[in-house]
Amino acid sequence: MSIFIKNIQLNGLVTHIRIEGNRFSKIGTDATPSTSDTIIDGTDKAILPPFYNTHTHSPMSLLRGYADDLPLFTWLNDYIWPFEAKLTPDDICIGTRLSILEMIKSGTVFFNDMYWKEEATIRAAKEMGIRAAIGIFAIDSLGLKDIDQKSSGANKQLSDAPLIQMTISPHAIYSTNKTEFQRCAEVAKEHNWVLHTHVSETKKEVDDCLKEHGCTPIELLEKYGVLDCPKVILAHAVHITENDMEIISKHGSVISHNPISNMKLSSGYFPIQAALDKGCKITLGTDGCSSNNNQDMREEMKFASIRAKEKYGAESIPVSTIFEMATKNGAEAFDLDAGEIKEGKLADALLIDLNNERMVPCHHLLSNWVYAANSECIDTVICNGRILMQNRHVDGEEEIIQSVKKRYK
Amino acid sequence: MSIFIKNIQLNGLVTHIRIEGNRFSKIGTDATPSTSDTIIDGTDKAILPPFYNTHTHSPMSLLRGYADDLPLFTWLNDYIWPFEAKLTPDDICIGTRLSILEMIKSGTVFFNDMYWKEEATIRAAKEMGIRAAIGIFAIDSLGLKDIDQKSSGANKQLSDAPLIQMTISPHAIYSTNKTEFQRCAEVAKEHNWVLHTHVSETKKEVDDCLKEHGCTPIELLEKYGVLDCPKVILAHAVHITENDMEIISKHGSVISHNPISNMKLSSGYFPIQAALDKGCKITLGTDGCSSNNNQDMREEMKFASIRAKEKYGAESIPVSTIFEMATKNGAEAFDLDAGEIKEGKLADALLIDLNNERMVPCHHLLSNWVYAANSECIDTVICNGRILMQNRHVDGEEEIIQSVKKRYK
Repeated sequence: MSIFIKNIQLNGLVTHIRIEGNRFSKIGTDATPSTSDTIIDGTDKAILPPFYNTHTHSPMSLLRGYADDLPLFTWLNDYIWPFEAKLTPDDICIGTRLSILEMIKSGTVFFNDMYWKEEATIRAAKEMGIRAAIGIFAIDSLGLKDIDQKSSGANKQLSDAPLIQMTISPHAIYSTNKTEFQRCAEVAKEHNWVLHTHVSETKKEVDDCLKEHGCTPIELLEKYGVLDCPKVILAHAVHITENDMEIISKHGSVISHNPISNMKLSSGYFPIQAALDKGCKITLGTDGCSSNNNQDMREEMKFASIRAKEKYGAESIPVSTIFEMATKNGAEAFDLDAGEIKEGKLADALLIDLNNERMVPCHHLLSNWVYAANSECIDTVICNGRILMQNRHVDGEEEIIQSVKKRYK
Repeated sequence: MSIFIKNIQLNGLVTHIRIEGNRFSKIGTDATPSTSDTIIDGTDKAILPPFYNTHTHSPMSLLRGYADDLPLFTWLNDYIWPFEAKLTPDDICIGTRLSILEMIKSGTVFFNDMYWKEEATIRAAKEMGIRAAIGIFAIDSLGLKDIDQKSSGANKQLSDAPLIQMTISPHAIYSTNKTEFQRCAEVAKEHNWVLHTHVSETKKEVDDCLKEHGCTPIELLEKYGVLDCPKVILAHAVHITENDMEIISKHGSVISHNPISNMKLSSGYFPIQAALDKGCKITLGTDGCSSNNNQDMREEMKFASIRAKEKYGAESIPVSTIFEMATKNGAEAFDLDAGEIKEGKLADALLIDLNNERMVPCHHLLSNWVYAANSECIDTVICNGRILMQNRHVDGEEEIIQSVKKRYK
């Protein structure tokens, strides 16, 4: 399959772009289509890289609006966990499909997921044609044996899913013990998988860790040898010290910053500018729908950026920085040769409608995109050279909506 | 003109709603249409009150993305003011039309505006059929004579504009002197107009005021007699003391909280919970597009709510509170008998698409609306009994977009 996008704006100039297979093969006014190309008219549209969401729990779309405005432990103990205990693999598949639909409609082509019964999440991601990193969930209640069993069978499960990679996902230092964490690290090293965990999300977690282990959660992960894994995603990392930042930076671990979840759950503020100054790699994630309550990475960019400005000054975290975090940095963290519109890169892209009222006037495209736009400005989503949305329609979306409505009447 | 909305969800139940003239005349399953009614099928839709934006500078849509990520005074002196100096009345009309288009598409039916050359803003608001309060701008460079001249001629200008009310809008205590402020207060009392001003937006403003006048800006406005006006809108009110809050509460003045602008310009944080606890009336505003950079009140609700949660705890400022601020409280502040879907109230409403992916599942409609939705979930906007948008289309929108694009090629 090949696609020819004619008269599209890229970096302020009108050009043509050809996609062959799953990569951008030619960008330039001299690009020409082949007779079998699918032609897209890019007039009054701009092409931008899409989003790479580095932390979510996609099935939790089913809990959207189920419990808000509650203190953390009431929220978890009385609402979220009892609801989740009832979810079947089919429910999880339905919830993931809903989240993926939201992601596509808001310009995301990749998500990094952590949840129970990951085979149901894999099923949904395969169906929907989006990139995903799906975690083998590790937590005390599942135990070591589960890690071994699932990790040895995982690659087989993905033999027909070139867009999906496995990760190993220990939940957090307070819920996954040292032996399990270290087994996860071995698995990550053996398979060259990402290791994905929550860390330093709340002050309580850090205080408890200091009391029990005499060190911060980040220091503990370093002691465990977890940070020696080739690719580590640290979700939240809200309460981190300067020393923690140095450790993260030294190991090349990647932070997934989830500003909306952190604000909504009152977890605290991730010191984004300080972490950048220490050389930490930062990406963005939405977290699950019960603490956000959507999967909209553009909204996440705006929150991350302007909350940083409130704290550090109006000139801090400019649009180019936050845009890179949400796009290129996310792709890089998962070894995806994507996140930029360049010849040779994987063909992931958004076509933005420059006639949407939020995109005019267009003094600065990225400023409009980060601060003024919303998902409605996205006309087309391309993932791995395949059109997932065009004219804001995703194939099968009505059926996904109806299946969720039927389940939660 | 009358409208019959059948099978619409209101407070979780399916009902019918009839609008006669500019008011909701009948709500109930026993409501019946007249043969001349415009029929709207409300199946799979919910009706909600729309937004009342209590602080903006609508022509500034023209500056969207023109200057971001800059320190406040560089931003103003080197970018905003030189740009604004070149704006003609026709530019201002074009910019206001663009803002109003954005407002309608994002569910706002009323805006409170402060800008130069207000006759151009009035022209745009009349054309677009939206409610507005438009300020006679008072600032040292325009002087007393201008206030007198404009205020005496204002009511005539509005004889054919039943949806528009004038306000008197002294810019701020550092830019509008005591004599002018007091003349504004006289005008407000004489005409029973809202007096609309910026106050305590930055720490510098407060520090300078303490140095010059020995009191806070709020205390100064009280001394001037400004707070004795029947209706006062205080925009921003970021740096206010407990005593300031008591003064505001005592006089029944209304705060327009603009969280996105305050964060983006790094102005500081309005202590929303403390002000509520002191009994202050709080509404929401977007501020102008150069510091936001859109006119989206739903986004403003989400920012206001979750930033408050970060500060005060996850249970603070629940959805019902923030929703009232953005709807009913805003209408009340301008003596509009609107902001609620009730028989007898002015017929302002949004019809929300319950099949949008962000609105399912629907455990809690308002939670989905505040935290998960975006403007795309709004199918229909009704203002004063007239349909301004249906199926997300506003009459004339293409021409507005093209006029702005032509002006800023």
